Amino acid sequence: MGLDNTQKASLMSGGDFWHSQATSDLPAIMLTDGPHGIRKQAEGADALGLGDSVPATCFPPAVALGSSWDVELAERVGTALGAEARAAQVSVLLGPGVNIKRSPLCGRNFEYFSEDPVVSGHLGAAWVTGVQSHGVGTSVKHFAANNQETDRLRVSADVDERTLREIYLPAFEHIVRHANPTTIMCSYNKINGVYASENRWLLTELLRDEWGFDGLVVSDWGAVNDRVSALIAGLDLEMPPTGADSAILEALDSGGLHTATLDRAVDRVVALVERTRPLSDNGIDIDIEPVDVDAHHDLAREAAAASAVLLKNDDAVLPLADTSSIAVIGEFARTPRYQGAGSSQVVPTRLDAALDAITAIAPRVTFSPGFTLDSVPNPSLVSDAVSAAADAEVAVLFLGLPAEAESEGYDRPDIDLPADQLAILSAVHDVNPNVVVVLSNGGVVGVAGWQDQATAILEGWLLGQAGGRATAEILFGLTNPSGRLTETIPLTLQDNPSHLFFPGADQHVRYGEGIYVGYRYYDTLDRPVAYPFGFGLSYTTFAVADLEVQSSGINRVDVTAAVTNTGTRAGSEVVQVYVRDTHSRVDRPARELRAFDKVHLEPGESTTVTLTLDENAFRYWSPGHHRWAVDPGDVEIEVTIGSSDARLRATTSLDGDGVVDPLTAMSTLDEWFAHPVGSEVLAKVLSDSGARLDDQMRRLIGSMPIVKLASFGMGLSKDTLSEMLSAVAT
Amino acid sequence: MGLDNTQKASLMSGGDFWHSQATSDLPAIMLTDGPHGIRKQAEGADALGLGDSVPATCFPPAVALGSSWDVELAERVGTALGAEARAAQVSVLLGPGVNIKRSPLCGRNFEYFSEDPVVSGHLGAAWVTGVQSHGVGTSVKHFAANNQETDRLRVSADVDERTLREIYLPAFEHIVRHANPTTIMCSYNKINGVYASENRWLLTELLRDEWGFDGLVVSDWGAVNDRVSALIAGLDLEMPPTGADSAILEALDSGGLHTATLDRAVDRVVALVERTRPLSDNGIDIDIEPVDVDAHHDLAREAAAASAVLLKNDDAVLPLADTSSIAVIGEFARTPRYQGAGSSQVVPTRLDAALDAITAIAPRVTFSPGFTLDSVPNPSLVSDAVSAAADAEVAVLFLGLPAEAESEGYDRPDIDLPADQLAILSAVHDVNPNVVVVLSNGGVVGVAGWQDQATAILEGWLLGQAGGRATAEILFGLTNPSGRLTETIPLTLQDNPSHLFFPGADQHVRYGEGIYVGYRYYDTLDRPVAYPFGFGLSYTTFAVADLEVQSSGINRVDVTAAVTNTGTRAGSEVVQVYVRDTHSRVDRPARELRAFDKVHLEPGESTTVTLTLDENAFRYWSPGHHRWAVDPGDVEIEVTIGSSDARLRATTSLDGDGVVDPLTAMSTLDEWFAHPVGSEVLAKVLSDSGARLDDQMRRLIGSMPIVKLASFGMGLSKDTLSEMLSAVAT
Repeated sequence: MGLDNTQKASLMSGGDFWHSQATSDLPAIMLTDGPHGIRKQAEGADALGLGDSVPATCFPPAVALGSSWDVELAERVGTALGAEARAAQVSVLLGPGVNIKRSPLCGRNFEYFSEDPVVSGHLGAAWVTGVQSHGVGTSVKHFAANNQETDRLRVSADVDERTLREIYLPAFEHIVRHANPTTIMCSYNKINGVYASENRWLLTELLRDEWGFDGLVVSDWGAVNDRVSALIAGLDLEMPPTGADSAILEALDSGGLHTATLDRAVDRVVALVERTRPLSDNGIDIDIEPVDVDAHHDLAREAAAASAVLLKNDDAVLPLADTSSIAVIGEFARTPRYQGAGSSQVVPTRLDAALDAITAIAPRVTFSPGFTLDSVPNPSLVSDAVSAAADAEVAVLFLGLPAEAESEGYDRPDIDLPADQLAILSAVHDVNPNVVVVLSNGGVVGVAGWQDQATAILEGWLLGQAGGRATAEILFGLTNPSGRLTETIPLTLQDNPSHLFFPGADQHVRYGEGIYVGYRYYDTLDRPVAYPFGFGLSYTTFAVADLEVQSSGINRVDVTAAVTNTGTRAGSEVVQVYVRDTHSRVDRPARELRAFDKVHLEPGESTTVTLTLDENAFRYWSPGHHRWAVDPGDVEIEVTIGSSDARLRATTSLDGDGVVDPLTAMSTLDEWFAHPVGSEVLAKVLSDSGARLDDQMRRLIGSMPIVKLASFGMGLSKDTLSEMLSAVAT
Repeated sequence: MGLDNTQKASLMSGGDFWHSQATSDLPAIMLTDGPHGIRKQAEGADALGLGDSVPATCFPPAVALGSSWDVELAERVGTALGAEARAAQVSVLLGPGVNIKRSPLCGRNFEYFSEDPVVSGHLGAAWVTGVQSHGVGTSVKHFAANNQETDRLRVSADVDERTLREIYLPAFEHIVRHANPTTIMCSYNKINGVYASENRWLLTELLRDEWGFDGLVVSDWGAVNDRVSALIAGLDLEMPPTGADSAILEALDSGGLHTATLDRAVDRVVALVERTRPLSDNGIDIDIEPVDVDAHHDLAREAAAASAVLLKNDDAVLPLADTSSIAVIGEFARTPRYQGAGSSQVVPTRLDAALDAITAIAPRVTFSPGFTLDSVPNPSLVSDAVSAAADAEVAVLFLGLPAEAESEGYDRPDIDLPADQLAILSAVHDVNPNVVVVLSNGGVVGVAGWQDQATAILEGWLLGQAGGRATAEILFGLTNPSGRLTETIPLTLQDNPSHLFFPGADQHVRYGEGIYVGYRYYDTLDRPVAYPFGFGLSYTTFAVADLEVQSSGINRVDVTAAVTNTGTRAGSEVVQVYVRDTHSRVDRPARELRAFDKVHLEPGESTTVTLTLDENAFRYWSPGHHRWAVDPGDVEIEVTIGSSDARLRATTSLDGDGVVDPLTAMSTLDEWFAHPVGSEVLAKVLSDSGARLDDQMRRLIGSMPIVKLASFGMGLSKDTLSEMLSAVAT
C-alpha cells in the first residue's frame, strides 16, 4: 500500500480503544469484548464503562457452554454471535477463552470451558468456526498460562515445559490447527519470567513456526510493556494505543528493529482488516442482516438447557410434577445470576427469571427471597421461607454466588456458598425433606458440607439470559438435563492440586502440581472427590457396551462403542474416551480424556459411536529430549459415560514413534545392557577386563554412565570406549 | 611451594582412588568412605570391593543417629570416628550425609538424617565437630539436591530457588557456618540442568561468597564431567583421578583457564593436606592413639539405644518381664540387618545379634527364623514359628527389609515389607495376641496395613554393630526408648508429596511439591499419616507446660518451656519448637521445626528448656526479590514433645526486616493505595481526573500497575505519572 514508516508504526496499535488504526487506504475495524455476547461499547461511554454497552444476546458463558460437551451446539452459538457481530459492524469478537481451570478460585473461570485441554480445544474450535462463518474474526485468549487474576498483569507463571505442552497449550494448538482463528490474544502475565507479550518462543517459535498460525497476534488490552520487544517477539497489534509509535520509529532508526519485522506485522494488520471488514458497496454495508433476537434467545435457552448439570436426584424427586405445590426460595429465582463480571459482561436483549418460568408452568407456586444478595443474614426472610417450605410438597432453593463474589480482576478466597444461604438451606431441610437446590455460580462451589440436606442438586453455572426458562424446563422435565462436569467438584478446597501453590506471591506463581491438574490428580492418587470430571445425571438411563478398539494406522486407533437409552425418556449422553498409559517411560496421569461425543437417543434407541484417536492421544512431552514422544507397547482405552459408573476398557498396542536414542559415552550400563548391539559389545569388554559384576553390583552401578567405568578402575580405557562407541554407531 | 603448572595440575585430582596426589613437598592424604564407620580399603582390594575393608566400629547409620535427636551424642560418635580415622591414618572421612529425605523410596535414605533441614543440619554439624576434633577432615555431602539414586549421575533436579534455599540447602549452610567443615563433596546430579560439579552458583557464589566456606570442594567419586569447567565453577579436587591433567594444561595455554583459578584450587588442596595430615616427627606419626574397640562398641550401643523409636505400645506390653516365656521369631534376630549397602558399608569390629542378647537376659526364650532373607515363602518355617508363638506368653517378631531391598545405587519401588514376613505376622497374631514387632529398615516401611496385628512396634532402623544388644535392652526396659521420628511414616506411598514426581524420567526430576516436603505437606493439608514427624513413645510419661516467648533482639526470641517426667522411670524426651506463620505474604507450611533439645529426666524431675530462635527461624526466600525476607507482625510459636499430643502455642510479634519495596510505575493500584504517601498522591490524581472508581471497580482493577491507567483512558498522562513517582521517591 506504499506506506511510510510513520504510517506503518501507526498501524501497530489501535486508532482508539476499540478500533484499529485507519489509513487512507484501509478502514478501521472494531474489536469488542465477548465471548458469550457482543459487548459493543455504547457511544459516549468511557472505555471501562462495563455496563454501558449495546444490548446483545447473552448466551451461556463458557463455564456452562463447556458443560454441554456439545461441539455442534457451540458452533451454532458461535454462528449466532458472528451474525450479531456482523450486524453491529464489529469485525473481531474477543474470544473464545480457553485457559485451563487450574484452581477453582480463579475469578475468571466462568469465561473458560474446562480443566481439560481436549474439552477446551474442541469447544473453542467449534465456537471459532461458527463466529468466523460470518466473516467476523475471533481472538483465542489468553495466550498463555493465564490461570488466575491475582496480579495478572505482572505475575510470572512458572511452569515446566512438559506441563505447558500437555496441559496449558493444547487447546490453543488444536484451535490453531483446526479452526484457523483470525487472531490470538496474548495474555498479561509472564511465563517463566518473560511477558507473554514479549515472548518470542510463545508468539513466534511455537505459535507460528510449530503450529503454523498465519493470523495476527493482538495484545490483551494493556498487556504490552515494551512495544519494540513485543514487536520483535511476534506481537503484531497493541490494544489499546499507548503512543508507542515514536518508540518504534526510533528503534527502526537505531537498528534495534528491522524493517522486515515491522513490515511483517503491518501485513498482518492489513490482512486482518481485509479478512474481517464488513463488505461494502459504494459505502453501503452489504453483508449485514438484522439479528433475529427471538431466535437467538431461543438458541440461548437451548444452550442453557444442554449445559446445566444434574448432580444429584435422590428418589427421582426431579422432574417435578407441575401439579405439585412448590415453594420457590432464593433471590436468584427472581434476580437471575446469569453471567460474570468484568469485560465479558453484556447487556442482554431480554432476561428470563426462573421464577416467572416456573410460575408459568405450575400453578401452585409460592416465592420467598430467603436471603439478600449482600449476604447479610435476614431472620425475617428466613422465617418466611421456612413457613413456605413447610406448607409445600417440595422446596426449590436457588442458591449461588453473589455477583461480587467472582469477577475478572480478582480471585476468590474460598469455594464456599455464603453462610446465610447455607443457613436457610438447613432451616428449610428441617421442615421439608424434599429440597431441590439449583446453583448459580461461575466457579465451583463446595457441596460436601451441605449436600446431604438436598434431595436433588442442579448445577446451573451461569446460564445466560434464557437460563431461567431453561432451568424451569429442566425442573419440570420439559427438557432432560444433559450437561456433564468439565471440572471436578472437590470435597474441600485444599484437595485441589494447585492449593499449596495458588496464587503465589512476589509476582511468581509456581505450577508445582505440573500436569496433574483436575481429574488427572484425583484419579492418579485415587483421592475422593464430591463429583468427578465427566459426571452428570439424566432423567433417563444409558448403557454403554461393545467396546472395540481397532488400529487404523500408525499410532492411530478407532474406538467404537454402543450407547443405548435404557430408560423411558429421550435424552442425551456424552461418550468419553480416555487413554490410560500405565507402561510409559515417564509418569502419566491415570487417565486422560482424548475424545468425546454427545449423542441424543430416544427411549430404547441405540447408536454406535466411533471416535478416532491419533498420535496426539498417545504422545507425551519428553522433558529431557524436548520433543513429543510416543512409546511403543500396550495402552488401555477406557470409555465412560457421565451418568453411570460403567468403565469399559480395552488394550491396544502402539507402534511408537520409532525414535531410538543412540548410545553414547554418557549412556548408562543399564542402557548399554538393554541395547541389542550395545549389550554384546559391553559383555565382551567386561569379560576381557575380568571385572566382577554380580547381580547386586549391577544394580548398584547400573545407572552409571559407561564413561565413568574408567574412574572406577574397571579396566575401561578411552581407546576401548571409542571402540565401543564405534561398534554401536549405526 | 614453587610448583610448576604440571605439578599444579596434578594436584587437581587424586594420586590414586583413595589418596590425594603427593609432591616432593607434600604428602598424600587418604580419604575414605563413611560416614558411620571407617571404610578403609584393604590392601590389594579393587576400588569397588565393598566388602574388603579394614574392620572398624559400625556406629548407627544416620537414619538411626538422626532419630536420637541428640546433638551431644552425635558429636561423641563423631569424636570416636575421628579417633578411628586418625588411628588408621585416614585424613578425611567422607561424611556426613545431610541430604533431605524427599521420598521414602530413595535407596540411600539410611545415610541421611531427616526430612527436615534443621534436624539434618544440627546433627550433621555436631558430627563434623566431633570428627574434626581429632584433626581429621570431613566432607559434607552430597552437595546438593541429590535426593534419589535413580539416574543419579545424570539426572537434573529441577527445583525452584525458594525450595532449594528453604529445604535442600539449609543443612549445608548451617554446618558451614557453625562447624567449619574441611571439605564439601559435590554431588553427581545436575541442578536445574547444570551438573553440581560445574555449578558456579552452587560451589562459589552460594557456598563461598554467601556462606563464607573456606575449605575445599571435592567431587563425589566420578562426579566430574568436564574438569576445566568444574575447576572454574569452584570444584577443587577431582576424585578419583581420570587423567584430566592435560585438559587443565591445555586450558591454561589457550586462556580458557586463568592461572589464578588454578592457584586458588591448588592452595586449597595444600591447605587441606596441611590441616588433616597425621602429624609426624622424623617420619613417625605422633598423634595416633590405638582405638579402644570396647569403648567404641559401647558407644555404638548407647547410640543405638537412643535412636530406636517406639511407635506403639498398647497395654504397656513393653518392657517385657525377663521371666516371661518369649518366642523370638524372624531371621533378623539372628542375622542382624544393621547397616545399608554401598559405599558406606563397613566391616564391623564385632556384631551383636539381638537373639543372643535376649537369651542372655531372659531364660525362657525360643527362636524360630520364620522366614528367609531371600523372601521365598517357607511354610515349614512358618508353622514352626506359629507353634512357638502359640506356646509363649509373648511373640517378638524381627521384621524388616532384606539387604538387597535398599542400597546406594537404586531406589525402592514401594514401601512394603516383604509379603512372606507379613504372612508370618498374621499367622502369629492369630495364635498369640501379644505380638511385639521390631523393625530393621533403612528407609520407611508402611505400617498401616498390618499394625493392628502388633501390640507394640519398635522401629529400630539400622542400628549399627551393637544394635542387637541395644534392642534387647529396650525390650526388657534396661534402656528407656527415646528416639523420635525424623521422617513421617505415611499411610500409603502415594500420600507422599513427591509421589507424582519421583523419580522423574528422561534425566529430569521435577520437585513439584516444592517446600512441602514431609510433615510440611501433611500438616499444611491436614492429611492423615500413620505416625507423624517428631513422634516417639517412652516407658515413662512427660508433660510440657509454661510456654513463654520473650523477645531478645530484632526478630529474635527466647522460647522457654518446662518439661516434667510425670511417670515412674527415668527417660529422655525431645522438646520441639515449631514456627507457624499464618500471616505471611507468601504461602508457608503449617509448621516448621526451628529448634529442639533432648533432655534426660528422672521420675518426677522437671527442667526448664530455653531455646533461642533468631532471624533464620522466621525468614523465607522471596522468589520475586531473590532474597531472604522477614515479614513484620505476629507469628505463632508451637512447642511439642514426641510422646504426647500436647501442643503449646504462643504468639510473638516480629520486627520484620525493614525492607519496604519502593513504588514504581509497575506497582499496582492496590500497592499505591497501601502506601502511606502513594495513597495520597494517587487519590489526588484520581480526583483531578474525575475518574470513577467505585468499590467493585477498584477490586476489578486493583492489581493493575499504575502505568496501565494510561491505557485505560483514566486520564493518567506520562507527565502525571512522572510527578507521582517523584512525589513518592524518598
